[in-house]
Amino acid sequence: MADKKQPKQNDLGVPEAVETPSVSDSSHVSGAPSKKLNPDLTVNEIKRGVRPGDVYVRMRQTGNRFFRRVGPGHFIATPESNRPEGTVERTYRAIKKILIGRPLETAEEIHQRLSKFKALAVFGSDAISSSAYATEASLVILMVAGNAALGISLFTALAVAVMLSIIAFSYRQTVFTYPHGGGSYNVSRENLGEMPGLVAGASLLIDYILTVAVSIVAGSAAVTSALIASGYGDQIQYLESLLPHFLNINVILSLGFIGLMTLANLRGLQESGTIFAVVTYTFIFGLSITLIVGIFKLFTGTLQPAAPPPILAVTEPLTILLILRAFSAGAVAMSGVEAISNGVPAFQKPEPKNAATTLIVMATLLGAFFLGVTYLASHMGLVPSEETIISQMARAVYGTSLPYYIFQLATTGILIVAANTAFAGFPRLASVLARDDYMPHQFSFRGDRLAFSTGIGALGGIASILVLVFQGEVDSLIHLYAIGVLLAFSLSNSGMVIHWLKSKEANWKTSIIINGIGASLSIITLIIVTITKFALGAWIVIVLIPIIVSFFLYNHHHYSRVRQQLRIIEGQDFPSRIEQLVVVPIDDLNYASLRAIAFARTISRDAVILHIGTNEEHAEKIKNKVQKYAPDMKLVIVDSPWRAFVRPLLAYVDAVHSQYPSAFVTIVLPEFITARWWDGFLHNRSAARLREAFVRHPNVAVVLVPYLLEN
Amino acid sequence: MADKKQPKQNDLGVPEAVETPSVSDSSHVSGAPSKKLNPDLTVNEIKRGVRPGDVYVRMRQTGNRFFRRVGPGHFIATPESNRPEGTVERTYRAIKKILIGRPLETAEEIHQRLSKFKALAVFGSDAISSSAYATEASLVILMVAGNAALGISLFTALAVAVMLSIIAFSYRQTVFTYPHGGGSYNVSRENLGEMPGLVAGASLLIDYILTVAVSIVAGSAAVTSALIASGYGDQIQYLESLLPHFLNINVILSLGFIGLMTLANLRGLQESGTIFAVVTYTFIFGLSITLIVGIFKLFTGTLQPAAPPPILAVTEPLTILLILRAFSAGAVAMSGVEAISNGVPAFQKPEPKNAATTLIVMATLLGAFFLGVTYLASHMGLVPSEETIISQMARAVYGTSLPYYIFQLATTGILIVAANTAFAGFPRLASVLARDDYMPHQFSFRGDRLAFSTGIGALGGIASILVLVFQGEVDSLIHLYAIGVLLAFSLSNSGMVIHWLKSKEANWKTSIIINGIGASLSIITLIIVTITKFALGAWIVIVLIPIIVSFFLYNHHHYSRVRQQLRIIEGQDFPSRIEQLVVVPIDDLNYASLRAIAFARTISRDAVILHIGTNEEHAEKIKNKVQKYAPDMKLVIVDSPWRAFVRPLLAYVDAVHSQYPSAFVTIVLPEFITARWWDGFLHNRSAARLREAFVRHPNVAVVLVPYLLEN
Repeated sequence: MADKKQPKQNDLGVPEAVETPSVSDSSHVSGAPSKKLNPDLTVNEIKRGVRPGDVYVRMRQTGNRFFRRVGPGHFIATPESNRPEGTVERTYRAIKKILIGRPLETAEEIHQRLSKFKALAVFGSDAISSSAYATEASLVILMVAGNAALGISLFTALAVAVMLSIIAFSYRQTVFTYPHGGGSYNVSRENLGEMPGLVAGASLLIDYILTVAVSIVAGSAAVTSALIASGYGDQIQYLESLLPHFLNINVILSLGFIGLMTLANLRGLQESGTIFAVVTYTFIFGLSITLIVGIFKLFTGTLQPAAPPPILAVTEPLTILLILRAFSAGAVAMSGVEAISNGVPAFQKPEPKNAATTLIVMATLLGAFFLGVTYLASHMGLVPSEETIISQMARAVYGTSLPYYIFQLATTGILIVAANTAFAGFPRLASVLARDDYMPHQFSFRGDRLAFSTGIGALGGIASILVLVFQGEVDSLIHLYAIGVLLAFSLSNSGMVIHWLKSKEANWKTSIIINGIGASLSIITLIIVTITKFALGAWIVIVLIPIIVSFFLYNHHHYSRVRQQLRIIEGQDFPSRIEQLVVVPIDDLNYASLRAIAFARTISRDAVILHIGTNEEHAEKIKNKVQKYAPDMKLVIVDSPWRAFVRPLLAYVDAVHSQYPSAFVTIVLPEFITARWWDGFLHNRSAARLREAFVRHPNVAVVLVPYLLEN
Repeated sequence: MADKKQPKQNDLGVPEAVETPSVSDSSHVSGAPSKKLNPDLTVNEIKRGVRPGDVYVRMRQTGNRFFRRVGPGHFIATPESNRPEGTVERTYRAIKKILIGRPLETAEEIHQRLSKFKALAVFGSDAISSSAYATEASLVILMVAGNAALGISLFTALAVAVMLSIIAFSYRQTVFTYPHGGGSYNVSRENLGEMPGLVAGASLLIDYILTVAVSIVAGSAAVTSALIASGYGDQIQYLESLLPHFLNINVILSLGFIGLMTLANLRGLQESGTIFAVVTYTFIFGLSITLIVGIFKLFTGTLQPAAPPPILAVTEPLTILLILRAFSAGAVAMSGVEAISNGVPAFQKPEPKNAATTLIVMATLLGAFFLGVTYLASHMGLVPSEETIISQMARAVYGTSLPYYIFQLATTGILIVAANTAFAGFPRLASVLARDDYMPHQFSFRGDRLAFSTGIGALGGIASILVLVFQGEVDSLIHLYAIGVLLAFSLSNSGMVIHWLKSKEANWKTSIIINGIGASLSIITLIIVTITKFALGAWIVIVLIPIIVSFFLYNHHHYSRVRQQLRIIEGQDFPSRIEQLVVVPIDDLNYASLRAIAFARTISRDAVILHIGTNEEHAEKIKNKVQKYAPDMKLVIVDSPWRAFVRPLLAYVDAVHSQYPSAFVTIVLPEFITARWWDGFLHNRSAARLREAFVRHPNVAVVLVPYLLEN
């Protein structure tokens, strides 16, 4: 190749003159391509009545509108090059723009950093929102032991709060040590090894999915509670009687919310940050007021539940196991604490400092809320029912008045926003895993809006399935929850302990103590939760984790094998040319097949016309036509007594390979492009079928040479 | 091309030695292809653990097992070449063989001729079977005028029988005049012109579809009647209450039967002839006995209906219109008479004589049965109800005993077999229309078993939809029926009149009288039926016919335009070579992309490597790699700020075309073939997406160069 004189080329890589040499030995074959055979318009342009001349002029005038030249052979695509073509695509893009927003350039990414204020909403909403359901989760366990046992919840809540503060402090250390993202996966993998890292990764992925399902279902429950409180209970029951049995109001609301969340996140982080901050701070403000007013009224003795709490039948004694189980249920409040340490790089500079501050603020708020709600609930003697605990509490404080509805709305809001933590975290973690070859690489591609579209879509889809399968029941989902959170905490904190032991940085001894306590407490809680919740659903998570880890390892194995096979080894041979046998299967000799033959003749010295037919006479005719119009080509005729076409062609290629095992066979077929797409149905789709048939043949390529049919 | 010395080639068209020249200017590029880069096994073979060497040996030893050589460059495919490959295809073929039978060679067709005995079953079952529902169709109309009016049915039946005999005699003439198939389409088109021919064709296609729907629904009704007669009415109602509202027992039975019929016909004519003959003759025998015994008992005064007929309320007076309407309904008995004249070539020799005899036997049987059933029914005072008339009649004759059940079974059988007339006729007519370019050409291809598979499938599909839409109600479907039959009769007989006028063959005057009476009666009846049934559904057929004719004309126009565009015009230029710009889009430079580059280098002097990327550093790396491993290639780098890949490539091709409008662009891409199909999901499917994007570009071809990944 290179020893030939290179024709002069311009920057687009196109030679200055595209030659069209002619075959000299046939009087019927001439050099100049006829206008007919060089259509240069897209079918749509022809349909719009554009004449060939118009397009050349238009294109030449606008010149490099698609590309801006930045150097020899180096261009940057302009927005024009990303312009949609055709009605279908234009419509699709328009809808996508409304739902997802305009495409963002990669260079716009740097502006997408979060202030502490917004970061608390984006990364903290999950943790803070758990104050809306964690108390309830404990009370549901305790209520089997009668009304008196509900008071115990205050002690389990205190235990959780202590645990929470220790975990928050130990994560604070992680944030400073891993400013580029110190998720449990990173920390465990680096300090404990591949397998603990993958276990942490799997736990977190499961938890992100559960976060979405639990938060959205709880958010929907807040809407339903407000409706029941307003006396619409009967109407809801009637509506539900109309629905198929696998759908209820909660499930429908939840699926709708998940859909909206998915769209919001496909739009990208920055804008969702703004929207979600409003909701999160409304909830924080609302719950603070409720607790302050509530506790004030409690002390002044003016706080009365809207409805007197029911008397509970004692069905089980108050055992240690029951108390531990209530503690396990309350531990759900801790979920989401690791979100900030995962998201450090999304903070404004200085990232670690801002992240650490946000973490402490978040933990403080969460602890105060959880304790406050539990304190009020136990002193008012509230009992979990169709209406949520905090709805009962808010009604006691405000009555069924406007402030109550605003607060209820804010509760719904933050629970939905909480799902956003997962929508930020899951795709990010999946992309990190994909970059490390543990997840399919699609998870590492950013969409038009710089969001990891595949991860966002996968999360939305799996969470929707969970909501459907668990019928929108928060309680059954929460049982699956805490295991993953605590497993991640344990691994991450243990990893930090190893880190300090190895690095011996300043203050490493203090740090070891903090992370050591964190690790020990996490492990103890993990054991308690696993034992007390195993039969209630925790076993599902314990089964899932090894499956997911195996999936990670399978992917990693595949990608590394591929990488190894594709790597160019210094000094090893590789072919510079692939000489090929070109086969042109024809049914008749016409302009379309002559075009395919011209293509075949151009790309190889060894081209064969192959006629697979059922009719002797027809074959004879083709023989004569080939002799007349393509006398330089070798013709092979195969009679196919079963009228099959694809199978004999496969057999022909096999026969070629049986003689020349290393031959590369290129099959060149004419393909009709009809002016109207539905006309395509009037033509036998043998070209497409043929391509399918050879799709897994390692040394066969199929080329369809387009032939534009006029209208 | 041809002025170069041709390398010596063997008969398969493969050159004796496939050379693999090397690029001389690069030390990293060597001539001998590495074993790695010339995989010669299919993926399945590799999975089965076959070593490359084994296959070469096996293939060489078996030699031309796929093809038998019959001359230079001329082969016949052996059964071995039709052998399925891979588990999926083998399973599919095995199932197909059980359901459809082994593939037949084209040469086996001659054995598929029918004897008169079998032909009566195959072509006559439709006509004969109408005796099972035609009487009922009349009675349903008359019953609004009370029990006394039912006696009128005998006179309308007589009118239909007279009409039938005239039509039979006029078709007898057609059979002798058109021994190669004298369907209404042929006769009308030849004598009256294209449009009448197409109208006749459209009418017949509609009627074939209705025949299937009506016969199968009536057959299912016979099963249901037998069940009701045996006292299973309540159980049927209970079962139906469990079904979705658009399904009832009749619909489900009908759909099942249509499915079986479709399969039987895909197997081919001969075998269905054998099965169907048994059923048809059982029915003929059974109905004959029923009528003889019934009339004997009637005269001896021992015939009593199983249940006394209900007293009908008189809701309408007995007007001429009502009687005409009853006649129109009874005219449904004439459907299927034209089947024999369509199918003359399927008879054993001498075809016309055998066909004519069969036609007369068939018409005699049908007339006798129709009159007999109507006679008995009116003398017994039977009234149409949930149970069919002939079921009531058979119960009166036999009681609810074994002979009754056998007769009922035979009725079901012949009604289902009647649908076979349509399954023989519809695909045959569609194939004739396809050969004349009026139907999509797919309808003219014969399947493995020599049957016109597309037509059979289309008929089964449309009939099923009809059954679903009309909820398995025979009466509503029958309203649509007679118009098409009579339209075809009218056109065919008018065509014959013109034929005799033109040809003036022996006895042309007598013939004109016969066909003239046939034509006049058909036209009169057509007018009566159209008027009396217009509002009841006949309008649907009247609307459909022009739509179908337009469809025929559209197809014809398309195919003739294509033919005209593709025809090689003596002396007109056509290109002998297509010089092309080859573009190799790469994401990274590895073995797979080097293989694509080698392919590109081989097929064109003008090949460009195109990197569309988002990362400057990565682009720089690729630049260096290209300089090292493919220094003879031109590299173009396009930055894609929106991370898009397909769109900038489209824009690049547009830019090339804006400079060189006639350039043919070939895009060469490496494509991974993974050892396990599911591993394909781990790779970005950009190759397939790219091919989609360029699928309607008239001067762009996309070549995927396969690269086999090892397990």
